[in-house]
Amino acid sequence: MPRIKFTVSYDGTDFCGWQRQNHGDKPSLSATITQGLKKIFDQEISLFASGRTDAGVHALNQVCHFDTTRPIERLKGFNLSRAMKTQLPSSIVVKKAWLAPDDFHSTISPDKKTYRYLILNAPQPSVFLTRYADWVYHPLNLDFLNECSKFVVGNQDFKSFQSVGTEVPHTVREVFDAKWEWRRPNIAQFTITGSGFLKQMVRNIVGTQLLLERKHLPATIMKEILEAKDRKVAGPPAVPQGLYLMRVYYPLDLDNRCLEL
Amino acid sequence: MPRIKFTVSYDGTDFCGWQRQNHGDKPSLSATITQGLKKIFDQEISLFASGRTDAGVHALNQVCHFDTTRPIERLKGFNLSRAMKTQLPSSIVVKKAWLAPDDFHSTISPDKKTYRYLILNAPQPSVFLTRYADWVYHPLNLDFLNECSKFVVGNQDFKSFQSVGTEVPHTVREVFDAKWEWRRPNIAQFTITGSGFLKQMVRNIVGTQLLLERKHLPATIMKEILEAKDRKVAGPPAVPQGLYLMRVYYPLDLDNRCLEL
Repeated sequence: MPRIKFTVSYDGTDFCGWQRQNHGDKPSLSATITQGLKKIFDQEISLFASGRTDAGVHALNQVCHFDTTRPIERLKGFNLSRAMKTQLPSSIVVKKAWLAPDDFHSTISPDKKTYRYLILNAPQPSVFLTRYADWVYHPLNLDFLNECSKFVVGNQDFKSFQSVGTEVPHTVREVFDAKWEWRRPNIAQFTITGSGFLKQMVRNIVGTQLLLERKHLPATIMKEILEAKDRKVAGPPAVPQGLYLMRVYYPLDLDNRCLEL
Repeated sequence: MPRIKFTVSYDGTDFCGWQRQNHGDKPSLSATITQGLKKIFDQEISLFASGRTDAGVHALNQVCHFDTTRPIERLKGFNLSRAMKTQLPSSIVVKKAWLAPDDFHSTISPDKKTYRYLILNAPQPSVFLTRYADWVYHPLNLDFLNECSKFVVGNQDFKSFQSVGTEVPHTVREVFDAKWEWRRPNIAQFTITGSGFLKQMVRNIVGTQLLLERKHLPATIMKEILEAKDRKVAGPPAVPQGLYLMRVYYPLDLDNRCLEL
């Protein structure tokens, strides 16, 4: 069966997250997109994504795949993005689609991912950013936050930054890069790239760094928290609306065998 | 009674407009803000604004005023912005407040207003801008749109750009400035400043200009439409979510007699 890979962008505000949660009555992104694909392809759909984003978290380029019973000749030149426009709310946009090789798997194949976190740093909140950024009113010390971020980079155990109740056995991940910068004079952005991320790991890292910054504690506490391998010693997660899944990287070999539709 | 002037910013998406409309079940901005003021001041409130914005239209600095029974001594240093934060949804933020002279009236006193209109000009829509901008996918010709805008500037009858069903007798207004420019490489912005605006006048002007641009019609048609003084010859209004009330200007003499709280 032909395998289709596609990228999708979404505003996570009005969804309960990628996957349905037990609580809440908002739809899941996964169910909403699957529903649209079912209508278009007139078949059952098993949809996979690079990972699950939490309720309120956004994506610029989430990567997904599914297999279709539609023969390959009827897929060439098929505009999935346009077809899905009629099926999806305006908060979800399919950006690009490819015919992917059988050994491509959106969840298993990634070798790295980039997330971004945005904070409005201004005396007053903005009505246009409440859905899209955290808000901190005291002037943020990005130099200090970058001091904290240095300890996050490397191949190490991130158990302290894994949210309770969702433990996975292997908590070692590699963070290649983690950096704060001013996106605009009053918007701070944190960009982090790693081999993979534990549940709420980015939000827990950001939340902990913000706590240290606000309380004027030494940046080296980040190191101590990592070494403790204990969620209880880290700070609370930063709010979900500031977080964006920016990009998922796959091995070049797999990318080269994907054919743009 | 002391008169309080304040500026307020709002995301108009989830409101039926400034004033309650007959249709729809969304709350009005006016009712939501009045409700908050009632709670804080524990009195009936007559709230006035510089003008009414339509459903879906945003404001960066709408100007309002009301009179309070609270004595002036208990208002000095009173932080209206902070007090209202507990009463309002995150889509409405009171920015600043002043003690205004008795002859200040937010609706009657303005001598000019600035509106802005945003358009995402890109092959695909953005999930983060559907609430905040119109979307045009073909590359916009801003030079042409600026040609059209020239005809709008001046002291003239804007009857052709007044929405039907809401006629006012005097349809002459002065537009001081109207200009298109690239806000970012893929976001076009139209900024218009005038002595006052008729119902949906900015959206009708933008919608008509976009129609002429899309259909490759001559810019001079703008002049003909103005001269016709007939709403039926103009184009449809541009969508409300692209429009922002940016600033309301009052005579310097009044501004100088307002005391910041």
